[in-house]
Amino acid sequence: MAYEFKLQRRVEFSETDAAGIVHFSNFFRYMESAEHAFFRSLGFSVMLKDYDPPLGFPRVHVECDYRAPLRFEDLFEIHLLVREKKPKALSYLFKFRNLSTASSLEAARGGLTVVCVAHHPDGRLVSAKIPHPIAEQIHVAPPELLG
Amino acid sequence: MAYEFKLQRRVEFSETDAAGIVHFSNFFRYMESAEHAFFRSLGFSVMLKDYDPPLGFPRVHVECDYRAPLRFEDLFEIHLLVREKKPKALSYLFKFRNLSTASSLEAARGGLTVVCVAHHPDGRLVSAKIPHPIAEQIHVAPPELLG
Amino acid sequence: MAYEFKLQRRVEFSETDAAGIVHFSNFFRYMESAEHAFFRSLGFSVMLKDYDPPLGFPRVHVECDYRAPLRFEDLFEIHLLVREKKPKALSYLFKFRNLSTASSLEAARGGLTVVCVAHHPDGRLVSAKIPHPIAEQIHVAPPELLG
Amino acid sequence: MAYEFKLQRRVEFSETDAAGIVHFSNFFRYMESAEHAFFRSLGFSVMLKDYDPPLGFPRVHVECDYRAPLRFEDLFEIHLLVREKKPKALSYLFKFRNLSTASSLEAARGGLTVVCVAHHPDGRLVSAKIPHPIAEQIHVAPPELLG
Repeated sequence: MAYEFKLQRRVEFSETDAAGIVHFSNFFRYMESAEHAFFRSLGFSVMLKDYDPPLGFPRVHVECDYRAPLRFEDLFEIHLLVREKKPKALSYLFKFRNLSTASSLEAARGGLTVVCVAHHPDGRLVSAKIPHPIAEQIHVAPPELLG
Repeated sequence: MAYEFKLQRRVEFSETDAAGIVHFSNFFRYMESAEHAFFRSLGFSVMLKDYDPPLGFPRVHVECDYRAPLRFEDLFEIHLLVREKKPKALSYLFKFRNLSTASSLEAARGGLTVVCVAHHPDGRLVSAKIPHPIAEQIHVAPPELLG
Repeated sequence: MAYEFKLQRRVEFSETDAAGIVHFSNFFRYMESAEHAFFRSLGFSVMLKDYDPPLGFPRVHVECDYRAPLRFEDLFEIHLLVREKKPKALSYLFKFRNLSTASSLEAARGGLTVVCVAHHPDGRLVSAKIPHPIAEQIHVAPPELLG
Repeated sequence: MAYEFKLQRRVEFSETDAAGIVHFSNFFRYMESAEHAFFRSLGFSVMLKDYDPPLGFPRVHVECDYRAPLRFEDLFEIHLLVREKKPKALSYLFKFRNLSTASSLEAARGGLTVVCVAHHPDGRLVSAKIPHPIAEQIHVAPPELLG
């Protein structure tokens, strides 16, 4: 059973922009990398190719609030928390802390809501129940962590 | 005076992912490209280097809702609408339509809230009023377009 | 019959890095966008899904020489030239000119060598002859353009 | 004194494309991440802001040969080797091995040639000698490793 996951990364040069800071779109790539590492920590991939049809977890809603910029070579932590769990959907909260600042400043806070879908051979994406072996391992984080 | 801007793009291969669709993070790059083209259409750049200190428009909040995937070589329209205007901030709504589908299906709907900041030489970003020549050209879209 | 293609683009903010210039890796995305537009101009996609197994054109060798940086909002031209044509492979030369400079300065020169492959259902990529309807439309550029 | 550096990474979903493999342009981002980690291992950043004017290492030539694709979640090794050292330039060779295959298959082999430049306040980039504290720590790899 798990409701959180922490990942550390260092800002890469290709993730910065001409304002000298991480391009805002890359926070979504960071969130996704934490989400996928969370699944791997449970023994699964987010691309479930052994199911027929194969299952995946596309996003239906995402958001991010930016508080302080991240810069090249800053070390930061992504803290994933499970915010909501439904039969066919999961919602995550992500807190970014800049470990290269004295007080581990919160850099941003974001969210992803994903649905489980079956990839049909004709290209259609059809919503599906999250497989039991995965669903049973994931539960919602305590409210005090989601504040 | 302007409250909207439309831009057409075609999905590039490097914007797709192994699920065969545009990676969700790229919708934010698309929104930004429309925002910057909107500014150019008014005669300005979003990087205001002639001000001292230089001004820019970092994001404080962004979000996106995904309804139907975009695929390689799909032609789509990004419709920018000014959602809110404050002395130091602007908020945009973006509607994505897939022009490669029969009914120009709405693929996604997103938003960016940006603040005007001064880039001080010591690296600090300090919020600032949107310069008058820009602010006077931008107004909020009629409510019926924002629905 | 075609041996060249020209495409204009404007540098987007998300393509720049903290050095204030286009990140060097993005020149390869630019080359690819010109290659794909070249194929579309001939009436084809580079993803040939109607073949069984489907055909594609992965890269086997790429290179780029950088001469002058491109910056945010610079307008530039990508000039694709067919450098070599073999039964299963094509090689392209790309010349980048910065149209935002007085003399349309050459910013970079790059190359892509691609092979035609069949995507077998088991995941294997097997080299294949370029389909005749495509191959017959492409020929090598005159030597004086390749200098 | 150092002439090599090894880095392990796992393929992220946002690095793949609709062909189901790592987009070829991302190998250059991987090379750069190894180059920057190599510099950090020597106690330096590639952005030398304490020099006046600040120094950096833009690329003048890059290339890559692709042998076998990398796929989502593959674990791979980037092996950086110093190929050439000049007063104002460095050239690196990079060997990519896919650690998720039985035989740690070589996936690609690439190269970067970088020059040391001073970023003048007026925007000009002027070539400069690599600072002695850095240059003295880097030497060329033995020929048998560069084969």
